Amino acid sequence: MTTQNPTAAMLVIGDEILSGRTRDANMHHLAGELTKQGIDLREVRIVSDDRDAIVAAVKALSSAYGVVFTSGGIGPTHDDITADCIAAAFDVPIDVRDDARALLAAHYAKTGSELNEARLRMARIPDGAALIDNPVSVAPGFILGNVHVMAGVPSVFQAMVASVLPTLTGGAPLISQTLRIQRGEGDIAGPLGKLAAEYPALSIGSYPFQKDGVYGANIVIRGQDAAEVDAAMTRLKELFPE
Amino acid sequence: MTTQNPTAAMLVIGDEILSGRTRDANMHHLAGELTKQGIDLREVRIVSDDRDAIVAAVKALSSAYGVVFTSGGIGPTHDDITADCIAAAFDVPIDVRDDARALLAAHYAKTGSELNEARLRMARIPDGAALIDNPVSVAPGFILGNVHVMAGVPSVFQAMVASVLPTLTGGAPLISQTLRIQRGEGDIAGPLGKLAAEYPALSIGSYPFQKDGVYGANIVIRGQDAAEVDAAMTRLKELFPE
Repeated sequence: MTTQNPTAAMLVIGDEILSGRTRDANMHHLAGELTKQGIDLREVRIVSDDRDAIVAAVKALSSAYGVVFTSGGIGPTHDDITADCIAAAFDVPIDVRDDARALLAAHYAKTGSELNEARLRMARIPDGAALIDNPVSVAPGFILGNVHVMAGVPSVFQAMVASVLPTLTGGAPLISQTLRIQRGEGDIAGPLGKLAAEYPALSIGSYPFQKDGVYGANIVIRGQDAAEVDAAMTRLKELFPE
Repeated sequence: MTTQNPTAAMLVIGDEILSGRTRDANMHHLAGELTKQGIDLREVRIVSDDRDAIVAAVKALSSAYGVVFTSGGIGPTHDDITADCIAAAFDVPIDVRDDARALLAAHYAKTGSELNEARLRMARIPDGAALIDNPVSVAPGFILGNVHVMAGVPSVFQAMVASVLPTLTGGAPLISQTLRIQRGEGDIAGPLGKLAAEYPALSIGSYPFQKDGVYGANIVIRGQDAAEVDAAMTRLKELFPE
């Protein structure tokens, strides 16, 4: 059986890249990952946080290419307008959705932060979209039509790319489980390396965080076999009890 | 007097960036330089070496924004099709032009290389275009309408940006003179630094080369005052006699 891989395009919503303040990392990462999968990235556009520009680019790219990836503009602040622009481009309603709200509520309950109005913006999902797992910071991306909407923060973008890429070439989606460990990566690295060696079929990633004086890493275990991911997560929890 | 700075867009012709083999440097450089000048970079597109894609992007960007910069696709090989695409986008003829050919002929005579058919491709300039100085490797860029066509090699791209940027904000264009010095940059650096300190109004850049066992650097002196550039070049030649 041969499968024709789709053509791809990317839309970066990135004032900080257009101003030169930040050098792009997501495009470079996605380009490399798509090439490894044999998917042909044909065009990239970078636009500012401007509704008309985003909507026009989404329409143009989603009709011209088989699959489109966006990065940026799905955070909690007023200039995070990507989700609304995608809804407008596809002419569907958008509102806070229960499944996305539940993910955020569980996360903020655990971390002791308030799920305020700003954070609730991250649960605004266009009607008909499927959520993309965010194993790093929970707020989900989504897929609507052929458009994959992902975060701009590089560690989150990369985790979302890892989640969706296998589905594009006919493979099973990756399943992920995350353990938040409040210890320095230097303490985690040794045992984690041994665990990764025990499970060569799994992808085990470490995404450090540091916020309000609390630091540590989110350890994400990914694979196509749910039982194997479960087993590795059990071992990980034994290595780093709360 | 207040001058309204133009809005800007960039078109990167870059298979090597879309494949992930190369991480973009030119966009990041241009974004920073435009921001310093107060020019608003609104959109960037990256397309492959595909005639239809390039022509369509040039037309779209040149009609939507005040000024457009392109990078890449103006070298000597068969896949360097940018100049022909720009001519097509503006519907003007293109052929080898005498002034561009003369620049290349003088350069290759000096370096002892043949101005063969492949290298002559770099003298193909659309009718009505103005040349952009290339102080690093001679083959010129050009300006047609509001589109500034520049090389993809980062050191050449940066030199061309330095040449054209002052003209966009109402300043005088930078004049440049280049001295090719066949000595290692380590030997050049000390005296060059002193020369730069003597001429604070000038920009003095060093672009190293290494080819066929010959190495050294092109030293480019840039400024708005031709007499001052002349004086600094005279001093430079005294420091590094042939």
